[in-house]
Amino acid sequence: MERLDDTVISALTVNSPHVPSSAKAAAADHITELVRPIQDELEDRWLEETDRLDAICRYALLPAGKLFRPALLVESALAVGGVLEQVLPAAIGTEYGHTASLVHDDIIDGDSMRRGRPSTYHKFGTDNAIVAADALIFHLFRCLAECRDKGVPAERVVTALEIASASGIALCKGQSLEAEITENSIRDVATYLRMIDGKTAALFRSSCQCGSVLGGGSDEQVDALGRYGTHLGLAFQIIDDLFAFTGDSETIGKQTTSDIRNRRLTLPILLAYQSGDAQDVRELDMVFEGGLVPEKALAMVSDVLVSTGALTAARKMAWEHATSAQDALTTLPATAHRERLHWFAAHAVERVS
Amino acid sequence: MERLDDTVISALTVNSPHVPSSAKAAAADHITELVRPIQDELEDRWLEETDRLDAICRYALLPAGKLFRPALLVESALAVGGVLEQVLPAAIGTEYGHTASLVHDDIIDGDSMRRGRPSTYHKFGTDNAIVAADALIFHLFRCLAECRDKGVPAERVVTALEIASASGIALCKGQSLEAEITENSIRDVATYLRMIDGKTAALFRSSCQCGSVLGGGSDEQVDALGRYGTHLGLAFQIIDDLFAFTGDSETIGKQTTSDIRNRRLTLPILLAYQSGDAQDVRELDMVFEGGLVPEKALAMVSDVLVSTGALTAARKMAWEHATSAQDALTTLPATAHRERLHWFAAHAVERVS
Repeated sequence: MERLDDTVISALTVNSPHVPSSAKAAAADHITELVRPIQDELEDRWLEETDRLDAICRYALLPAGKLFRPALLVESALAVGGVLEQVLPAAIGTEYGHTASLVHDDIIDGDSMRRGRPSTYHKFGTDNAIVAADALIFHLFRCLAECRDKGVPAERVVTALEIASASGIALCKGQSLEAEITENSIRDVATYLRMIDGKTAALFRSSCQCGSVLGGGSDEQVDALGRYGTHLGLAFQIIDDLFAFTGDSETIGKQTTSDIRNRRLTLPILLAYQSGDAQDVRELDMVFEGGLVPEKALAMVSDVLVSTGALTAARKMAWEHATSAQDALTTLPATAHRERLHWFAAHAVERVS
Repeated sequence: MERLDDTVISALTVNSPHVPSSAKAAAADHITELVRPIQDELEDRWLEETDRLDAICRYALLPAGKLFRPALLVESALAVGGVLEQVLPAAIGTEYGHTASLVHDDIIDGDSMRRGRPSTYHKFGTDNAIVAADALIFHLFRCLAECRDKGVPAERVVTALEIASASGIALCKGQSLEAEITENSIRDVATYLRMIDGKTAALFRSSCQCGSVLGGGSDEQVDALGRYGTHLGLAFQIIDDLFAFTGDSETIGKQTTSDIRNRRLTLPILLAYQSGDAQDVRELDMVFEGGLVPEKALAMVSDVLVSTGALTAARKMAWEHATSAQDALTTLPATAHRERLHWFAAHAVERVS
């Protein structure tokens, strides 16, 4: 059974997720190398803006984000003997699907900033953003069909279609459940995990499964990569939710404000409610009932999260999922691609943004 | 070359699109028979609401609308020798795609009513409606994949995937162009036709093409049914736009108010601008600049549309497209399904709602 390496463990066992700058630089190089062909392909596809809709889609897509999901699809395909060129369209497709969900999410959450600039709806208006994200969902499926032109057998494309469409429905169910959690103040960790399984893990799982299906993987390999993607997605989202309280000062301010405004009961909050005393619970209630100025709310919630040990406990859960993700890889052939997927899992919990 | 029958022509050549009640009753029977298996299938699929998202989707889908697009897909498949059971999932899928666009459209247009009851966003809120329509788009594609389970070869499913995804993009481009037409007061008939080709005809075309592809049609048949669907969609949308001014009193009030509020420059309005004198143009400007009470605006615009002959001219264009749709069918084998498609084209311009 493979485990997270020492650097990751040390990063996890302190309260801050920061890693030594040398490790960060190496990680950055690693990512750059991995995503370069995907980024080039994405940029090539959006060189020209033929009309306003394309211009809005382009704005939402570029400059590219981390391209984590496309990289997962590609590495999953290569890990089972697939060919990069054949699966590249589907990899780009996952980014379309992900971006579509971000564009609609920003409308729902009223988040006016995304990746350091105005979010798509804030720049182009809600109406345009609704339609552009719809178009990106259709682009996702057009990309899937393209794989046949690149030589992927039609049977595999249809199986990937099944997986990708079901994962899109799961994603929407996760978003819908997130709204229910907020409305009904559901403070149950199991419900939270079910919610992020849809909202985030579904697309990670689908990326890994589609990659391995399109790449010609066996049922066992597709299943293993599905489990890998699920655990990775859960780890990724838990860490994302932690950034509201443990990121750099800019992230903290922005994301915490959004989380509190949207009354998002993320894992550390749920754990603090569970393990906090009456005073902790009162303070959390005050924060999430609104009315406090952002700075005051942030300071109060941060104190409770540290004093209850909720931050550490949440980070430990992320770590356990990352380890489970790595464990799922053991049945795959030992290749450089498997190693990269292994490394992805460490990066998911070690990253600082 | 086949032509619209006399009933239709007589309905078209008078200013009102009303047809004799006997003809209406026969048409209603015809539709009922056509769509029954589709409606049964749709209802069966949404018997149980497993969660809130499903409940919202169900509300948007049922009671079913006209099911025109699914009926087109089924008849197109059967017209080229396909099997109903094999293509039924894809037929249901077109209704999902259509409903998704209506749900998002109602948000954009601020239309609080749809099919005589609160629109989805008005009932469940904008956030829920955004996510539910996204889910319906994913359901559309999951339905397409289902056709393989019913025995359709994977190659055909992937070709249908190409067509359906491209048509979704075209639909979004049409919606985007519609917004541009409004913002920039574009009064050009060619631009309007390009817009409705995306907004409406794309999904009609795609339904016909997917049906014939999944049903095993030849390239020539797929092409013919594509042309049929395009002309039918254009005729259908032009007639839809006319309902704002020629429907029953309830339709007139509601749709005209929505069109004027959203400054929708539909075909009759464009034609009135083209052929009106200075006074007509002044009155149209007054209506679309807003500020008039709805009753006054409606009376003024109706007068101009009648006096300029714009209503008649628009109806004539719809009729021409319906005839072109029928002409496209001539290369298909002479079957009852071809006859039904032929009848559809007459119904598209003859219907009263």
